Amino acid sequence: MGQYQIIGENLSKMPWEDKPEGSVGPVWRHSENPVVKRNPAKGIARIFNSAVVAYGDGFIGVFRAETINGRPHLHMGTSEDGLNWTIDEQRIEFVNEQGEPFQPRYAYDPRLVKVEDSYYVIWCTDFYGAAIGVAKTDDFKTFVRLENPFLPFNRNGVLFPRKINGNFVMLSRPSDSGHTPFGDVFLSESPDFVYWGKHRHVMSKGGDGWWQSVKIGGGPAPIETSEGWLMFYHGVTGTCNGLVYSMGAVILDKDEPSKVKYRSSTYVLTPEEWYEERGFVDNVVFPCATLHDAATGRIAIYYGAADTYVGVAYTTVDEIINYVKETNEVVGDDHEIGIM
Amino acid sequence: MGQYQIIGENLSKMPWEDKPEGSVGPVWRHSENPVVKRNPAKGIARIFNSAVVAYGDGFIGVFRAETINGRPHLHMGTSEDGLNWTIDEQRIEFVNEQGEPFQPRYAYDPRLVKVEDSYYVIWCTDFYGAAIGVAKTDDFKTFVRLENPFLPFNRNGVLFPRKINGNFVMLSRPSDSGHTPFGDVFLSESPDFVYWGKHRHVMSKGGDGWWQSVKIGGGPAPIETSEGWLMFYHGVTGTCNGLVYSMGAVILDKDEPSKVKYRSSTYVLTPEEWYEERGFVDNVVFPCATLHDAATGRIAIYYGAADTYVGVAYTTVDEIINYVKETNEVVGDDHEIGIM
Repeated sequence: MGQYQIIGENLSKMPWEDKPEGSVGPVWRHSENPVVKRNPAKGIARIFNSAVVAYGDGFIGVFRAETINGRPHLHMGTSEDGLNWTIDEQRIEFVNEQGEPFQPRYAYDPRLVKVEDSYYVIWCTDFYGAAIGVAKTDDFKTFVRLENPFLPFNRNGVLFPRKINGNFVMLSRPSDSGHTPFGDVFLSESPDFVYWGKHRHVMSKGGDGWWQSVKIGGGPAPIETSEGWLMFYHGVTGTCNGLVYSMGAVILDKDEPSKVKYRSSTYVLTPEEWYEERGFVDNVVFPCATLHDAATGRIAIYYGAADTYVGVAYTTVDEIINYVKETNEVVGDDHEIGIM
Repeated sequence: MGQYQIIGENLSKMPWEDKPEGSVGPVWRHSENPVVKRNPAKGIARIFNSAVVAYGDGFIGVFRAETINGRPHLHMGTSEDGLNWTIDEQRIEFVNEQGEPFQPRYAYDPRLVKVEDSYYVIWCTDFYGAAIGVAKTDDFKTFVRLENPFLPFNRNGVLFPRKINGNFVMLSRPSDSGHTPFGDVFLSESPDFVYWGKHRHVMSKGGDGWWQSVKIGGGPAPIETSEGWLMFYHGVTGTCNGLVYSMGAVILDKDEPSKVKYRSSTYVLTPEEWYEERGFVDNVVFPCATLHDAATGRIAIYYGAADTYVGVAYTTVDEIINYVKETNEVVGDDHEIGIM
């Protein structure tokens, strides 16, 4: 056992590579990145910002697929090893709670989270403006859309993998109707996935460094650890030639997750490789999912690269928590409960 | 009895003036406007965008008071006739549900709505960005803040005066972090005033005319009538020298108020008088409250004028409903339930 523990299931079959000699930083890339390349299925130009879970004997994913007409939709994919993916040519067909077809006009940046016995897909949907869409599936055959949890404008809905104090808990990033030159992470609770409330501010953009100076947004579902909820997120900085998206890490209080315990003052991964630097949108590292193994503390992070590819990166619970504590900078009053 | 009925209480003591000879349009101004003028109490520079109800033998109001340091707060006021107001020099002191002081950092554009036996104050508050704040009072002495119903950024929270299908119902206008150059009206439900959901789109900006081309926002609490929920709202147009705020009127479906039945294609009141044209913000007519009498169908509308004064205007349920039907233009798919 290491210094810190992942509280969750074992997943010995997850993708893994040990940290290479001379690796800089607490997160290292899969040697065969990107794991999903351009034109991965008929009619799909690019796949990125996507989410995976262990399912059955292998892995299943919900992918942001930029179709060749340029509009994003969600497609399922399957994999035996979590690295080689077969992507469905047909998009996921959603139904409403009456079982009638209820397709989002667009859908992007999905997260996929198991809570109790169900899987929840959370994505950015068109609800008279960008907002959070949610669907539930028990079998990856029928996807039932639930009530949109929040009013527009909102993006980056991230569900916690278990109820906290009896309620579902979702992070989100209130936005505007465009490319949103601001943005903090908030948290909301629901007893029933219909009505949401007890909204709290979690994390502010900013801090001493500039890599997360413009906006931030939640990433993969938080991982429960002995130190609290470990979450990877994206932080955005502005340049004269556009935005740059990096990956950060934060640890939230276990029982009151709107309180930040520790937060890395530096990025933990930033665009440096060819598939992160160049693509449909240059200079983007955008984490949306993790796989992790409680027995070994291993974590595999799935991230979108340059709005074009899917990359995988690795760390361990010890490596990342030690790094976050060493580089800790809690911004503003983010250690507080976040109500005003 | 007239052609249409207000469904509600009688209020014979409400302010009233008959329609003057030669009056243009369905809404006419009180002859002694503005009813609240500059410097109405010590330390308060201007009062506008404020809400009133009948209470006890007279009337009570919650006022947007721009203090002489330029920051808005909420002050109570009382009146025997609804026209001559005494404004409290001290701002309203809010407490949280534990009874501890919980003052908003700023507060503006209040609405004040009675539902069952309680009065709810809804305003724009600072919740790490502009958002809807809510407090409940039974006696206008203790004001208990409830959970903020929505994430930022949002303004113009308007509560319906009774539950519909067993739930509280609130309109709001999702916004951005600035002066918001866009905006439609949405509706949300709550069983308990803690958790909110079943969000629906109600009304779009736009239409054939330009007076509401930039954004719209709810106004006074909707009035229940024999034709549905009658609501006055504000519509905003843009000019080379800034925004112009006018008043419109809409009738929403009684049981499914996210459906628009009729909506006036023209404004029903627009800045024309000196106190509407010039002030801290020129060219603003911004309705926030009504008084109305079921017996006679009379309606008095309280509106902010030029972010400086409070004005009163009058109409009748017959006059306004006939006008809305005659000038009807339902924009886009606003007759639908408003989910996507």
